[in-house]
Amino acid sequence: MKDYDSHLDGFRFSATSAGIKRADLERLDFGLIAADAPATAAAVTTTNVVVAAPVILTRERLQKGLCRAILVNSGNANACTGEQGIRDAIALTAEVSSELKEDPNLVVPLSTGVIGVPLPLERMKKRIPSLIQGLETGSAKDVAQAMLTTDTHLKMVSLKAQTSLGWIRLLGMAKGSGMIAPQMATMLAVLLIDARVEPTFLREALHSAVEKSFNSITVDGDMSTNDTVVALAGGSPQAQTLESRDRAAFSDLLTEACMDLARQIIRDGEGATKAVEIRVQGAQDTASALRIARKIAESSLVKTAIHGEDPNWGRIVSSAGAAGIAFDPNVLDLFIGEVQIVTSGTLASNDWEPAAREVMKRREYVITLDLKAGQAQGAMLTTDLSEEYVKINADYRS
Amino acid sequence: MKDYDSHLDGFRFSATSAGIKRADLERLDFGLIAADAPATAAAVTTTNVVVAAPVILTRERLQKGLCRAILVNSGNANACTGEQGIRDAIALTAEVSSELKEDPNLVVPLSTGVIGVPLPLERMKKRIPSLIQGLETGSAKDVAQAMLTTDTHLKMVSLKAQTSLGWIRLLGMAKGSGMIAPQMATMLAVLLIDARVEPTFLREALHSAVEKSFNSITVDGDMSTNDTVVALAGGSPQAQTLESRDRAAFSDLLTEACMDLARQIIRDGEGATKAVEIRVQGAQDTASALRIARKIAESSLVKTAIHGEDPNWGRIVSSAGAAGIAFDPNVLDLFIGEVQIVTSGTLASNDWEPAAREVMKRREYVITLDLKAGQAQGAMLTTDLSEEYVKINADYRS
Repeated sequence: MKDYDSHLDGFRFSATSAGIKRADLERLDFGLIAADAPATAAAVTTTNVVVAAPVILTRERLQKGLCRAILVNSGNANACTGEQGIRDAIALTAEVSSELKEDPNLVVPLSTGVIGVPLPLERMKKRIPSLIQGLETGSAKDVAQAMLTTDTHLKMVSLKAQTSLGWIRLLGMAKGSGMIAPQMATMLAVLLIDARVEPTFLREALHSAVEKSFNSITVDGDMSTNDTVVALAGGSPQAQTLESRDRAAFSDLLTEACMDLARQIIRDGEGATKAVEIRVQGAQDTASALRIARKIAESSLVKTAIHGEDPNWGRIVSSAGAAGIAFDPNVLDLFIGEVQIVTSGTLASNDWEPAAREVMKRREYVITLDLKAGQAQGAMLTTDLSEEYVKINADYRS
Repeated sequence: MKDYDSHLDGFRFSATSAGIKRADLERLDFGLIAADAPATAAAVTTTNVVVAAPVILTRERLQKGLCRAILVNSGNANACTGEQGIRDAIALTAEVSSELKEDPNLVVPLSTGVIGVPLPLERMKKRIPSLIQGLETGSAKDVAQAMLTTDTHLKMVSLKAQTSLGWIRLLGMAKGSGMIAPQMATMLAVLLIDARVEPTFLREALHSAVEKSFNSITVDGDMSTNDTVVALAGGSPQAQTLESRDRAAFSDLLTEACMDLARQIIRDGEGATKAVEIRVQGAQDTASALRIARKIAESSLVKTAIHGEDPNWGRIVSSAGAAGIAFDPNVLDLFIGEVQIVTSGTLASNDWEPAAREVMKRREYVITLDLKAGQAQGAMLTTDLSEEYVKINADYRS
């Protein structure tokens, strides 16, 4: 159930310009989210071997499952910055914890932006007192704005769910697009919930939600040095802890929020004009279904065909075959939207092409590949590959 | 040593138009290569799960390591055509073997073109007598022309090597570009040598040559249903068999020819304006080096940066980190051409950027990533990703 309130009991927000994106422009690029008291916390971070300093610190500090504040900046990823990067992230979060009179290990940094350049530490440090003051009046929307890089739209979600404690609320924000941006470090998301849960359960619920959402979208298949999703549950000292019977409702809420943000990221993919779900069903197991779906979703040939609104089914079947999973091409079914193109490995005799072309004119539709080998399924959400994508990424710095 | 003669002792050539590409235009799309006597033969074919009928037949028929003729067509891949496709390929090659008074199992088909459409069997059958007659006067160049699809250039190579039997000669031809073409089935290559070798040795030598050449290039990472490389050694009944001590010379000749054709394919990649070698060295093993090189070579972000002539080193390091191979980013070195950008994980302090930009203006250069973890290395040749690529692939059929 949608609820567009952008305040959440137990959490406060603040954002400012620290001149990180552009020293000469007053653009929001530095934000703070503070819980009134330490909240239950969990994070899912990048699987890239090259890990940015803020990710190293966030992983370490959230091991105990508690967090008081999140300090976020755009314009600089603090990645490939070595020991200096770690020292800078520690110094900045220490300023926040000292102002909040909190354990420094309960403040985590999130950064996104240029790789390989040290943070403008002094400029950022100077803005921390005003970030703290801003918590009195600041809005979540300003923080969501401050984490954007090449995104063209603010990405927020606000949902609620009925539990035995009454309604619980969730407020989420994300930064995407940069999944494919030059030297821009990828996806960040923050999920805040006004009820408390056990840390181990929060971790499980977040992993499951991320698997079904952010890990099931692809703009160009690249995984960044900074990808981080953080969830905080229960920011108010009075926040109650959910009972076991409410765990399903909590998980569903978290998953729904992550999927909503993931769809917003796909719709705002660089140069993207389409959001297409690649659904593989009838697979022997979920891992195989997902691997084939991902291979199709990441194929440049499929993505350009989607862009050209061309029902080029051979590219879909051929990229499925390149996933390294055995299947029998002589039994499969293929649909574009509701139009069946291949039945038991044989091309539909006629009339499918104009109908399939009509489906592909839509902004969002589903391509379904049924392997007829089992009961498992998996889906990936992808975008088209446009000339605009190339333009954005080839010309960005020059 | 280059030698541009396009004839080869023991082999004859013929090509014609069978109206496969376009029924209304007289374009070369049907070719025949015949040895004067059965030659030693080997093939390397696609690893795609979806395999075209001609590939199934070629694999089967070359198991004994002998081949008399290769029948090749463009315009139709005979892929995703089920039992009908197999029957058609058998029927066409049978016409050839009957004309040549040869065992039908010694004729193999190669096809490339549209997927999922049956071959125009009758039109093709009718042209076989004239293909046979053409062998008297036909040229290798016409066959090389007849196998092209979206290629903009003929791809041929002719080399010779000194052995204890004297000079041996090789003539090769390939069809590429379609590695990335819409419904066009990928790469074909034929290597002909005028000396005989043992079948098992030919198989090993071809596998090794393909690994270092065609398997080390990427235009867009997709692998087709029809990829086939065939080698025939010794087309003349008088062809002598090489001695063991000449095997290295033979292997080198085959590898050099395959690498030459692979470079021609990369230079003619759809929309490609650059051919860049991604070299990963200092890896713990060759497989890791190749996997990281491939990940970088296939990254859309790296490929657009190459197109934009932007020394965006963060994208290179980040995509290396996404290959799933552990390495220490704090010790690596990175070079674009001869310009060192990262030394032991740290960005060069200044002046690297204009110099690196200069290198990237070249049409061909090398990007070197040194992991400093071992002695192994691997390289991939890649192209840039241009707006033109998207245009070709989005608009092809419409």
